[in-house]
Amino acid sequence: MPEAAVPSRQKLVTACVLLIGDEVLSGRTRDSNLPYIAKHLNQIGVQVREARIIPDIEAEIVAAVNEVRARYDYVFTTGGIGPTHDDITADSVAKAFGVPIGHHPEALAILDAHYKETGGEFTDARKRMARIPEGASLIANPLSKAPGFQIGNVFVMAGVPMVMQVMLDSLTARLEGGATMQSRTVSAQVGEGQIAEKLGQLQQRYPEIGIGSYPYYRGKIFGTSLVMRGTDPATLDRVVEEASELLRGFGAEPISGDPV
Amino acid sequence: MPEAAVPSRQKLVTACVLLIGDEVLSGRTRDSNLPYIAKHLNQIGVQVREARIIPDIEAEIVAAVNEVRARYDYVFTTGGIGPTHDDITADSVAKAFGVPIGHHPEALAILDAHYKETGGEFTDARKRMARIPEGASLIANPLSKAPGFQIGNVFVMAGVPMVMQVMLDSLTARLEGGATMQSRTVSAQVGEGQIAEKLGQLQQRYPEIGIGSYPYYRGKIFGTSLVMRGTDPATLDRVVEEASELLRGFGAEPISGDPV
Repeated sequence: MPEAAVPSRQKLVTACVLLIGDEVLSGRTRDSNLPYIAKHLNQIGVQVREARIIPDIEAEIVAAVNEVRARYDYVFTTGGIGPTHDDITADSVAKAFGVPIGHHPEALAILDAHYKETGGEFTDARKRMARIPEGASLIANPLSKAPGFQIGNVFVMAGVPMVMQVMLDSLTARLEGGATMQSRTVSAQVGEGQIAEKLGQLQQRYPEIGIGSYPYYRGKIFGTSLVMRGTDPATLDRVVEEASELLRGFGAEPISGDPV
Repeated sequence: MPEAAVPSRQKLVTACVLLIGDEVLSGRTRDSNLPYIAKHLNQIGVQVREARIIPDIEAEIVAAVNEVRARYDYVFTTGGIGPTHDDITADSVAKAFGVPIGHHPEALAILDAHYKETGGEFTDARKRMARIPEGASLIANPLSKAPGFQIGNVFVMAGVPMVMQVMLDSLTARLEGGATMQSRTVSAQVGEGQIAEKLGQLQQRYPEIGIGSYPYYRGKIFGTSLVMRGTDPATLDRVVEEASELLRGFGAEPISGDPV
């Protein structure tokens, strides 16, 4: 799908998501954080334009953070901020920014209160979760208390989906969104290859709307889902209408949304 | 998890996976190709060390392909090789390699035979699926016929999981694997923060085994899964034994595998 042009009054605000963790790379864990973050951010006008999955290796994290924080308006990381030896995200992000890292007084206080309340021991390992790069601000974690943090345009969150989600809620007010992408889907039992030429012409007539074409298979039934994305609802409706007409021209009955 | 050292007689063979497609970035589609590819490749001794999810934008694809093909032994791409206007992966990969692209005679013949057999029209759009960069070799697609291709150390596959999977089978014989990572998982109802210090010491005693620590929550039950990965089964067994002993030291009964 080509990059959709955006009306000049609304700028495109971009983001990159860094999923940090060997467990996703090895295939052990199937990530669910990226789709959640992408949908959440789009609602407030921030578009995820790239995601990277990288291992728990300091040099890799430092290089990736520095590369993508220069390219995108916002960067969101997940994973690697727990109490164990393989949790090296905070230290790596400090290194990427070239700042010292130490125990953050407020983070220590939050965790101290938490372990007093729950009767757990506030071990040195758990104090590790209060290590925050200098100059960073905390991201509240109402669920399991150990905070994330923001430094510059980089937001560092937990990898456990429930915890990541409450952190995302905590930080959302700090984001300045731009254009919000809306999308419409139309599906029909017709092959991509049949409609491709006319679909390409439709895309050329509406460069401000991104048209994606995705084949589907449901047993012996196959067809194509067209996903149209753009920032202007009226134009989007017009493209949906023309796309539906296009599909009917091939003898297929378009339905709104994905095939059941 | 730290990078596991590998016995000198077996080199580590690395790979990067590029998932190409706006549908994954927008959160519309939850990717299942990465875990499948990572597990499949590990079985033959190829380790996925990075994955990137990038949009259907030529400049992005060209830049990513050139960056990662220089860094890893192998690169696997999924998505963007169908017949529609948004399928730009083949052209982008040709550009990355600085070679011309045109209709590949064998690919044309395969598709021509397929549409003759199925009674479909071999449209110009469908001929687009025979566009292959000069110097590339085809990757067979026994399922839907339109082939993938290999150029240099880059393997270009379809995005539809069923089709990607048969292509992966087709190309596997071309890969030269190295060390195969084996993994063992032990879980127990004990907090990460309690065991973290001793776990870090265990990791230091066995630098050749990567030990990952993952907290889990099942309603009100929480605990930790330890995932140990390495190339030498005997060492791995020893680490599993010591890790289990470590967990028992905190009054927890370790089980093999993930919590149910």
